[in-house]
Formats: sequence, C-alpha cells, structure tokens
Amino acid sequence: MKAQQILLDSRPEGMPATTNFKLASIPLADINDGEFLVKNLWMSVDPYMRGRMIDRESYIAPFSIGEVLQGGAIGEVIESRHPEFPVGSKVSSMLGWRSHYVTDGSEHTRLPDTPMSESHFLGVLGMPGMTAWTGLNRIAELKKGETLFVSAASGAVGSVACQLGKLMGAKVIASVGSDEKAEHLLSIGVDAVINYKTSQNLTASLKAAAPEGIDVYFENVGGEHLSAALDNMNDHGRIAVCGMISQYNDTAPTPGPSNLAMIIIKKLKIEGFIVFEHWEHYPEFAKQMGQWLASGAVKAEQTVYEGLEQAPDAFIGLFEGKNRGKMVVKLA
Amino acid sequence: MKAQQILLDSRPEGMPATTNFKLASIPLADINDGEFLVKNLWMSVDPYMRGRMIDRESYIAPFSIGEVLQGGAIGEVIESRHPEFPVGSKVSSMLGWRSHYVTDGSEHTRLPDTPMSESHFLGVLGMPGMTAWTGLNRIAELKKGETLFVSAASGAVGSVACQLGKLMGAKVIASVGSDEKAEHLLSIGVDAVINYKTSQNLTASLKAAAPEGIDVYFENVGGEHLSAALDNMNDHGRIAVCGMISQYNDTAPTPGPSNLAMIIIKKLKIEGFIVFEHWEHYPEFAKQMGQWLASGAVKAEQTVYEGLEQAPDAFIGLFEGKNRGKMVVKLA
Repeated sequence: MKAQQILLDSRPEGMPATTNFKLASIPLADINDGEFLVKNLWMSVDPYMRGRMIDRESYIAPFSIGEVLQGGAIGEVIESRHPEFPVGSKVSSMLGWRSHYVTDGSEHTRLPDTPMSESHFLGVLGMPGMTAWTGLNRIAELKKGETLFVSAASGAVGSVACQLGKLMGAKVIASVGSDEKAEHLLSIGVDAVINYKTSQNLTASLKAAAPEGIDVYFENVGGEHLSAALDNMNDHGRIAVCGMISQYNDTAPTPGPSNLAMIIIKKLKIEGFIVFEHWEHYPEFAKQMGQWLASGAVKAEQTVYEGLEQAPDAFIGLFEGKNRGKMVVKLA
Repeated sequence: MKAQQILLDSRPEGMPATTNFKLASIPLADINDGEFLVKNLWMSVDPYMRGRMIDRESYIAPFSIGEVLQGGAIGEVIESRHPEFPVGSKVSSMLGWRSHYVTDGSEHTRLPDTPMSESHFLGVLGMPGMTAWTGLNRIAELKKGETLFVSAASGAVGSVACQLGKLMGAKVIASVGSDEKAEHLLSIGVDAVINYKTSQNLTASLKAAAPEGIDVYFENVGGEHLSAALDNMNDHGRIAVCGMISQYNDTAPTPGPSNLAMIIIKKLKIEGFIVFEHWEHYPEFAKQMGQWLASGAVKAEQTVYEGLEQAPDAFIGLFEGKNRGKMVVKLA
C-alpha cells in the first residue's frame, strides 16, 4: 500500500509558491502489534506554519527540506492492532499533509462523538478556537462593556474572537480585507467592520468606529494595524498578541510602529502567547464551546479545499485572504 | 519681595535649547492666614518633562507657553501663617523652576528629618527611586537568579534599578553612553556594562554580556535598545517600559523595531507604567530604601548644577548624558 505525502521542497522567499512543495508517494509498512493505520479525512493549514518554513529557532522546530510537512489532521483508523484505537475510531493528530500513515498512537487523541463534522476539531473546537478563547479570557481578560478590536477578523481565530467578544458583552470592532467579509461579520452581530484595504487611514477608521477608544486589541496582523490600535487604545488597555500575519512573508525586516511610546503614555500591557502553553484549559474551553455551538450562539465557519494536492494552494490562500473562517483541506 | 521664575517661552523643536526658556521676575503677594512662603532649596529636572513641552494629550497636562514651568522641588518655609508648616519646615512640592512662592500647603508634604541631604527626596528617595522600585517589583516582578538589562543605566532611575537588581539577586547588565559611566557602574557591582555609543552591534554586545539571555528589561531608551533586548529576551521575559528617551526629541516619527514578532515567538509581556499610579506603595518603598541607604547597600548618586538660571542647561544636559545619577539644581 502507498501513501501520498506533501514534502517541503524548498524554503519560500516571501510569499510561498506551489513550487516550494512536492507531492510524493511512499510505500507503507504493514502494521505491527500496538500499531494502527490511519486514513486522513481532513487536514489543517494555519498561518503559523509559515514560520516553521524558516530555518530559525522558535517555540517550535522548523520543517526540514525534503521531509513531509506536519500540521493538524483528523483521520479514521482503517486497520488496527492497537486495543485503544479500534477500526472506525476518529483520531486527531499533528500528522497532516499525508493521505495515510502507520502509528503507535502516541500524540493521538480519539475524538468524541459529535453531531458536527469532525473537521471542526481543526477549527472552532480545536487550536484556532482555543486560541481565541485563551487570548480573550486568559491574556487580555476582556470584561463586559469594554470595546474589543480584532484584526484578521474573518480568519479561523479572528472569527471566533469576534463571536466570543460579543458573548462576553463587549462592543466588537473588526478589520478584514474585503467588503464581502465585512458584510458577513456585520450579519453575525459584529458592531463595526473596517475594510483595511479601502481605508485611507486605519487610525482614523478605528477612531470613527470606536470613538470611546479600544480596551482590548486581539492582534493577528502587526504593522499598520498595531500602530492604529496603539493610537486608539484607552489607558490600561491590553493587547493579546496572537500573530502578525502581515509580516510572515517579509523578505527584509519591516520597521515597527513609530508610536510605541503609547505603551508608556497609556500604560498598556502587551502580551504574546502560544496556545499550546494553555492546553490544560482545553477541557473547560471545549465544554463551553460545545454548548455555544449546540445553541447556535457561535457559528462554526470554514472554507474547504478538496484533495491533498490542493493543500499548498489552501496554505498559500491564507496569505491571500481566500478563507472565511477556518481553512481546511478535505482529503479524498 | 520678588521671586525669580523660569517660564516656557516656546515649544522646543527637537533638542531643547536655552532659548525655549525665559527667566522672569515677579512680585510676591504678602501671605494671608493659612498660607506660607517657601524658598526653594533644590529643584529637579527629569526627562518626562520633555513630553509636557509638547502640546498633546497625555497622562499629564502639557505646559503652557508663557507660564512658569513645574517640577519636583524641595524648599524651606521662611514665613508662615499656617499651623502645620511652621518656619523652618522642609517641604516637597511640584513647584520647582522658581525661587520663592506663596502657598496654602495643598499638594505639599513635610519632609521627615534625615541625615542625608534633602535633595535625595528628588532622587533615590523620591520619584526616580520609586520608579525603579515599582518597575522591578510590581511591573516586571524580577526574581532572584534572573538576568536584568537596564538601559540609560547611569540615569536617575537606571542607576537605582541597577542597584536594586543586584539587591534582588539578579545578574545585572547595563547600557550607558560613556566609558567613564561604564567603569563607575562596574565599580558598584553591576556585572557587565555596554557603552552603546561604541558598540558596533547592540544585539551582539548584549548577547556577549548575557549569553544566558535576558529575563527582564527595564526600558528607558526605546529604538535600537528595545530591538536588541527583544532579540535577547528569554521565553516569558518581561519588559517594564518606563521611558523611551531616545525618541523624546524626535521631530519626525521614528520607526519602531522590526522584530516585534519576538513578542509572540518568546511569549513576552511588555508593560508601560507611570509611577504616580503606584504611589500608595510609597511608604513601603521609602522604608526599604531608607534602610538600604543607611546601610550603604544603595548609593545615592547625583549631579548638581547651581543656580536657578542653570536649570535649562541642567534639563538639556539630561539628553546629552551629562548627568550621573539624579540631575538636580541647587538654588541659591
């Protein structure tokens, strides 16, 4: 039996291209006692993976050239000699970017039964949803009645952050890159949305949307967005720094905002976080989110590409704003 | 009777010049019941005053053109019709930049008796000392065994931050602008000192001084210093942002560091603070600091200019690195 895999063929310079990826076919060994064979059903592409394509020290090891890529995936056990993972089990792993694989089950989680598509364990019920929840609850400590600004608000994390912000009783201002995304966010209850591509001046647009000032900024973008947020923050505002996607494809250092002195003037707190360090709180998150999804209080949004060979395009699409909600790839 | 005062004559563009200031003489009214007459003995010049010379919204109101400047001062009551401030009392106020004044005592504090010069209530025992203590204890929460980096380490706040860092059991790395200042800091126990003016590469100099990485950065400077600190911070490092003196005289916006993504990669916390918001802890600070000064554990350092007419030069000297420790002006 053979498995299809996608390898990192070269490190992207700037925006990733399909030529940085290579599809390969490898033979799979038979399973031994204590092992099982997984057929992947869904795989995740996430902006943070761009960082792993750079050869540098970070909170997670870089991908190696010529090796199969990694990322979140949901699969089904189709052959098993492992008592805890019988045939038919659905499992979550970090072994995406491949059609099948053999494993001993380490770093695998069996999924609970759910009326929703299992794909949502890669999105609203998984790492991106947990990231939004952690940033608002544990990092920025958003309070009822405050004003929240979310950038990349149509993305996997941002769309959950907007919805949680409303559930937590905040006024929510969002920024997105298209009018269609803006209209959609307004339709699900976001108070004001800025299309940063057509805004003449992000600081002024934000001030118009939130004349009372911003108490919490959920930072996904960096650059001009951070600068505009700093200008509009209220005293003792908090910035939860989840990502800076505007910079992930930079080929030269891009200067930061010129208004960092606002940190002193407004006594701001800026904190970066990585969701995996907060994973002990996943059960609490999953229970709450499960209830919100069941009641319809939170809408699970995703964009689906089909076929393993589309995974590079799905990944590149993240930086072109092609997704609304979580970008996932449905494997054949 | 006449008082000498220094007025703000024009707003500085870039580096302040003596022409931005004007010496004036005004008649003083006789004192009424409930008032007293103060002769200032010492006045403070501090970098934050530069911000008040700009006409903008901030945590403290801007100075007005043609009005007498304000700043910390220590004076002696020389005539009194106020029972709580008899002749001979030493008082602390924000009414510097003038030789004499009449007051009803509001926002005045009587100084306790001390074997030290009262001038130190403008420095190590006053706002700058309290700023260093607050930044390390309450904002960055420096712990024993950690590595602390202090910029502008020879200044009023920095020189106290270095000494407190050692008392708290940290390894202390400092940056200053002259070899003479560097040698002095080494002589009082700082572990390594960088002269940023002769360093070819601040990131590399900091890495050489602290190959184990920086846990806490006490930020007084901004710009390249912040960038070098971000590059050298350890995971979960904290940056207490007290000032960004490198930018106070900028006439155009200066871009910030290009490596702000380190905030995410290293999960850093950056927090700006204003010491006045923490003033309820002043008694605790003053008790500790009084003991350290008495035992010689902390050395009070100051640079003294003489005469009210020298106050503008003393203030300008702050931005030229002319002070070691607290810059004060001794009034005639």
